[in-house]
Amino acid sequence: MTGLETTDAWWRAANYLSAGQIYLMDNPLLRQPLAPEHVKPRLLGHWGTTPGLNFIHAHLNRLIRERDLEMLTITGPGHGGPAPVANAWLEGSYTERYPDVDWSERGMQRLFRQFSFPGGIPSHAAPETPGSMHEGGELGYSLSHAHGAAFDNPELTVACVIGDGEAETGALAASWQSVKFVNPDRDGAVLPILHLNGWKIAGPTVLGRMHDQDLQSWFGAMGYAPLFVSGDDPARMHEAMAAALDEAADRLAEIRKNVPLEPQWPLIILRSPKGWTGPQSVGGEPVEGTFRSHQVPLKGVREDPDRLRQLEAWMKSYRPDELFDEGAPNTMLRAGIPATDRRMTASAVAEGRRTRPLDLPETGAHEVDVSSPGSSVASATGQLGGWLREVFRDNPGRFRLFGPDETESNKLDAVFDETDRRATGEVHEADENVSADGRVLEVLSEHLCQGWMEGYTLSGRHGLFTSYEAFIHIVDSMFNQHAKWLRTTRRIDWRPEVPSFTYLLTSHVWRQDHNGFSHQDPGFLDVVSQKPGDMIGIYLPPDANTLLAVAAQSLGSTDRINVIVAGKQPEPQWFDAEAASAHLARGAGPLPGHDDADPDVVLACAGDVPTMEAAAAAQLIRAHSDLRVRVVNVLDLMALQSPDRHGHGLSDADFTATFGVDCPVVFAFHGYPGLIHRLTYRRPNHDNFHVHGFQEEGTTTTPFDMTVMNGLDRYHLALAADRWTGGHARSLGKLCEDALQRHETHVQETGEDLPEIRDWRWAA
Amino acid sequence: MTGLETTDAWWRAANYLSAGQIYLMDNPLLRQPLAPEHVKPRLLGHWGTTPGLNFIHAHLNRLIRERDLEMLTITGPGHGGPAPVANAWLEGSYTERYPDVDWSERGMQRLFRQFSFPGGIPSHAAPETPGSMHEGGELGYSLSHAHGAAFDNPELTVACVIGDGEAETGALAASWQSVKFVNPDRDGAVLPILHLNGWKIAGPTVLGRMHDQDLQSWFGAMGYAPLFVSGDDPARMHEAMAAALDEAADRLAEIRKNVPLEPQWPLIILRSPKGWTGPQSVGGEPVEGTFRSHQVPLKGVREDPDRLRQLEAWMKSYRPDELFDEGAPNTMLRAGIPATDRRMTASAVAEGRRTRPLDLPETGAHEVDVSSPGSSVASATGQLGGWLREVFRDNPGRFRLFGPDETESNKLDAVFDETDRRATGEVHEADENVSADGRVLEVLSEHLCQGWMEGYTLSGRHGLFTSYEAFIHIVDSMFNQHAKWLRTTRRIDWRPEVPSFTYLLTSHVWRQDHNGFSHQDPGFLDVVSQKPGDMIGIYLPPDANTLLAVAAQSLGSTDRINVIVAGKQPEPQWFDAEAASAHLARGAGPLPGHDDADPDVVLACAGDVPTMEAAAAAQLIRAHSDLRVRVVNVLDLMALQSPDRHGHGLSDADFTATFGVDCPVVFAFHGYPGLIHRLTYRRPNHDNFHVHGFQEEGTTTTPFDMTVMNGLDRYHLALAADRWTGGHARSLGKLCEDALQRHETHVQETGEDLPEIRDWRWAA
Repeated sequence: MTGLETTDAWWRAANYLSAGQIYLMDNPLLRQPLAPEHVKPRLLGHWGTTPGLNFIHAHLNRLIRERDLEMLTITGPGHGGPAPVANAWLEGSYTERYPDVDWSERGMQRLFRQFSFPGGIPSHAAPETPGSMHEGGELGYSLSHAHGAAFDNPELTVACVIGDGEAETGALAASWQSVKFVNPDRDGAVLPILHLNGWKIAGPTVLGRMHDQDLQSWFGAMGYAPLFVSGDDPARMHEAMAAALDEAADRLAEIRKNVPLEPQWPLIILRSPKGWTGPQSVGGEPVEGTFRSHQVPLKGVREDPDRLRQLEAWMKSYRPDELFDEGAPNTMLRAGIPATDRRMTASAVAEGRRTRPLDLPETGAHEVDVSSPGSSVASATGQLGGWLREVFRDNPGRFRLFGPDETESNKLDAVFDETDRRATGEVHEADENVSADGRVLEVLSEHLCQGWMEGYTLSGRHGLFTSYEAFIHIVDSMFNQHAKWLRTTRRIDWRPEVPSFTYLLTSHVWRQDHNGFSHQDPGFLDVVSQKPGDMIGIYLPPDANTLLAVAAQSLGSTDRINVIVAGKQPEPQWFDAEAASAHLARGAGPLPGHDDADPDVVLACAGDVPTMEAAAAAQLIRAHSDLRVRVVNVLDLMALQSPDRHGHGLSDADFTATFGVDCPVVFAFHGYPGLIHRLTYRRPNHDNFHVHGFQEEGTTTTPFDMTVMNGLDRYHLALAADRWTGGHARSLGKLCEDALQRHETHVQETGEDLPEIRDWRWAA
Repeated sequence: MTGLETTDAWWRAANYLSAGQIYLMDNPLLRQPLAPEHVKPRLLGHWGTTPGLNFIHAHLNRLIRERDLEMLTITGPGHGGPAPVANAWLEGSYTERYPDVDWSERGMQRLFRQFSFPGGIPSHAAPETPGSMHEGGELGYSLSHAHGAAFDNPELTVACVIGDGEAETGALAASWQSVKFVNPDRDGAVLPILHLNGWKIAGPTVLGRMHDQDLQSWFGAMGYAPLFVSGDDPARMHEAMAAALDEAADRLAEIRKNVPLEPQWPLIILRSPKGWTGPQSVGGEPVEGTFRSHQVPLKGVREDPDRLRQLEAWMKSYRPDELFDEGAPNTMLRAGIPATDRRMTASAVAEGRRTRPLDLPETGAHEVDVSSPGSSVASATGQLGGWLREVFRDNPGRFRLFGPDETESNKLDAVFDETDRRATGEVHEADENVSADGRVLEVLSEHLCQGWMEGYTLSGRHGLFTSYEAFIHIVDSMFNQHAKWLRTTRRIDWRPEVPSFTYLLTSHVWRQDHNGFSHQDPGFLDVVSQKPGDMIGIYLPPDANTLLAVAAQSLGSTDRINVIVAGKQPEPQWFDAEAASAHLARGAGPLPGHDDADPDVVLACAGDVPTMEAAAAAQLIRAHSDLRVRVVNVLDLMALQSPDRHGHGLSDADFTATFGVDCPVVFAFHGYPGLIHRLTYRRPNHDNFHVHGFQEEGTTTTPFDMTVMNGLDRYHLALAADRWTGGHARSLGKLCEDALQRHETHVQETGEDLPEIRDWRWAA
């Protein structure tokens, strides 16, 4: 173990500090005999994975020091939170963030007490943990986060620890292929460390029970050359781990230098006992190396004097006297700390401190001329594509597009004038816009797209994730976790603002001509809108200029999650560029050309298809009744919330000025109607809102027939307007009933909509 | 190609019928020269994958005929819907279900016209498709569905086609490991057919660009022995495919016979051109074998006479004259149809026609004695575990438990007296309750658990999926798709009722003592409640007897999705067995012992923790004010909906009798408050509902402190009751404010709740 004494001391110190966090609230250096009152009344935490995490961290520090590497670490088993906290404290970065928790006996006592304690810190590698960009509470995303951080960070090496529990998840299983998207010429490297300790909670793991030769072939086939480090004897394991990391670092340097076409990336497989160095057995049952060490391996410590002694002996086995001077790391440990800016627990990349705003080009060249609202035609995403091309042009190395393979089908293909899709293997003659240098990352895994972009934006760069609307539900839970992360970092003063995460959802519920019911689901908006306050933006631009305005605002924002739902088909245009900006600033307002004074009824709308139908309904109403009608377009859904709940919320006065004091509001909504009711719940005149939206009726049919199936079409809207104003417009009612009848017959006979509906360019 | 003439003819026929479905609305046999009016005005469908699917089906039919196999097929690329429809029609099963679409020229015309046509059928392998149990609209779930169908079906072989697009998804990537959960002794076999055709939509696929030797090692490591079938020449491909399938069938027979410890399962890798046998090039651009054949390879057919001729020539290349007699499959084709009950397109397993209700044991032995409501203590899931053990005992081979590894931590470990976890490799000495024969399937992938159980229940068997509440969001999108499937099958008269899908969510938002914020999310209920009508059940049993009643009802139900959220910790018990049944029948009603006559305020509650807090609040209110209070427990959340929206909905009269005519209702809800507002939106007195629930505040703290952070604790509830009744109960208000203050100080000092709160066994 020559030369590894410091590493071993570091490991012992981190293990001591980890056990201390789980167990102690006082007597941190065990200077007095351990007594029940020194022990926390509630023992909460996960010991099982922790010593392995500490072992890895200690060894990475040696590597960083010897080679002056820029590294950060992603801790997949983040519930081993005591480990990153212990290492941050040993490296001094914890005290830099939390001066009270200093290098002293009192500081160490605070370090221990606060862990999993009311008013203290969480049990995970949470946002509160210095150097963390990955909580690891929900499992599956470590490796995609690691790659997100590595893309366009050529100097960086991201060590990513993956537990064998996490390795069973779908998101992680897909993530192994991420390595094919790394371009060694301009991306950083990811060094996965698969930590097999045999059990998840109580049951064995699939990967933990695979044979070494099978793991070798499996990873070999995916582009990795695994290095095995297996055993339980600390001295031997130190030697093996040091050798493996040296070998891995050598290989990474080789790959960076030679940029081979098909690199064999290093990957470390660490087989070590669960709960390593902890209690071997408790009450006659084996604990170290079994599932029993998953959480708190030794329970009842306050009540049982024998267990209290066992805890004391266990903690003393790390020889704290040889590690700490008056509660501070001693000279040997301090010599193990990497250079100040090389400490992983103070990584500027992981903490997003390298964030730099995008250089956003003007949108002018891509705006649509709208001299007569409703009469010109454009594809909103098509226009956006041209602008995104310029975003790529102006921001080399810090903007990327992520998606399952929808850049082209969503009409953003103008970006391919500036960059390509990233190739993952041989490029075939028939491929288009595919190259090793591409900055559009397409993989048919929403999990990977989301995870990569989370890693990319949390580390200070910018992106856009385009997806089919229905299938974005696949990452509901990742969205949740990312929102939780951002909500917490926003409350931590030392955390800088980081770029927002922006979704562009097209191929939405109303335009699934090829696909049908399985592709029809607008419910992601409901999931998103559960998250509190200003961190959420939901935008439903009805045309190209509003989409451009929303996209520019979203890509310029920080610490938020923006969801944009936009159409890709040629559609009527409503707002000129200036009006679009003003509309976005306000969030909701009259649709140009559809603002009758003193209206009898308001037709509200949110979404491209609902806006078209609401405008058509307004035309019908005006032509066939005496009703005065205002069409109100809601671009920023959060404008509907009260201003005390969201900064974008209209004041009640503005709300009333927009939607009327007491007239009926027929609301044509893109999504499930309940969301509008929820957002307007406390608003004046709310009981007079009648929302039409997706009623879970769908199939492969014409776009207009989809609206009819859900009562969102112009005729149903006009009928509702008539009904809620007293039902006096008999000729309007008759006309609508007839039209719906004619539609039904026509569409089933011909497969097409009626000509007057197909020609949606009806005069404005 | 000796002996494969029928197979080739079948393939040509299916390809002809597939192209016809995409393109034609008339002239199905091309007896007249093809004219524009024979072509559909809107061309919608996916050709790219279709000929490959037909090729596979044709070859599987040969295998079935020659070996009299019981097979079904899961079509991962379900958007190649024309293929399963074509094959069902050729096999006669389509006409059995839809007599109009018969073996005649007129029938064929109907077959063509209906596809992706208003009023017709969807473009996918949808519920409308005979023999389908997997739509394949959202990608990722084919292989888990296939395994779900194979478990406990020892005679069955499930052929599962996986596209290379789908293979990039997380869910599918995790699914390869499913094979380790198959017990050849009592499960059926899955034969995966990985169909590599190189592109997903517009971009190349990761697996499609992997080298054969890498695929070999990759699959080899996971327990498969791949068989490659690659090329584009039909004759050679027929030979190769036939040989591969024979080899695969031989190996499966071997495995079934010898039950080796580590089987090498056959898997076929079919590399064939995308859009195989379709137009080679269109307008000078290559189409066959490129991404351009993904959807409709030949567009503008109505408008462009050259393209019309090209379509006609393409369709005639299949030589329809040699295939059909007056629109019926000719003798050769008919000879290719497997025996009536062996047809995959009429599979009784896939269609759920083997469904048999569970034998449900009495719950009596597991009920808790509740002589004095609120004073006895039990773990709800602990009691359930004992009953589930009997469900296992009484239903060998048709009941399974699925979960990420939470059977034990969720206190269902009594089931291990009856069965084990399924081992996936060597069983270690330290393992407990792990064996090759286990019927508890634990894998840390909610996707796999969900997919397996969907396959298991759709094929007529029964299960329970237990998960952490927060992480069930991981399968939001799978839930959505399953709900869409069931909603559609419920409308199809030939589809039998199948067992419901039941979730048991424990370790819920209010009891994440070890984990904190990342594990705190009750939003799945919001996702579920979007789905319409009677197909959804959401239950929040507050104690053991109600959980038993709900579980028994759920496992006995069909065609529904039941979500049960229950506590696992020792908690106060409220309902004796008889009261629990009556309470479930009604859905909502007074909490025993807390029903003051003519109440001034109603404290409603749903969920175990809210119920305890509401009851404690009622006690406080009674002790410190003159207010009369009724506690209403909502067990079945759908009771809140109007009866016209859900069969469980209380009538408005019952609603008013329960919640009062005009008194304030302070509602302590387990989840996000908005859901209660949404469900009660149209109810009398709704404006008087004041809902307390999860406010997105969380961390690792005491259970009671969690409720305080979110205003759901007894004191906040009592304060609200006072406020909404006019704020006259000054001593109550003061007491609550003081108690909250004392709590805050105490918990932060000691890490524990105040003794009077810890001792929740306050007198009833």
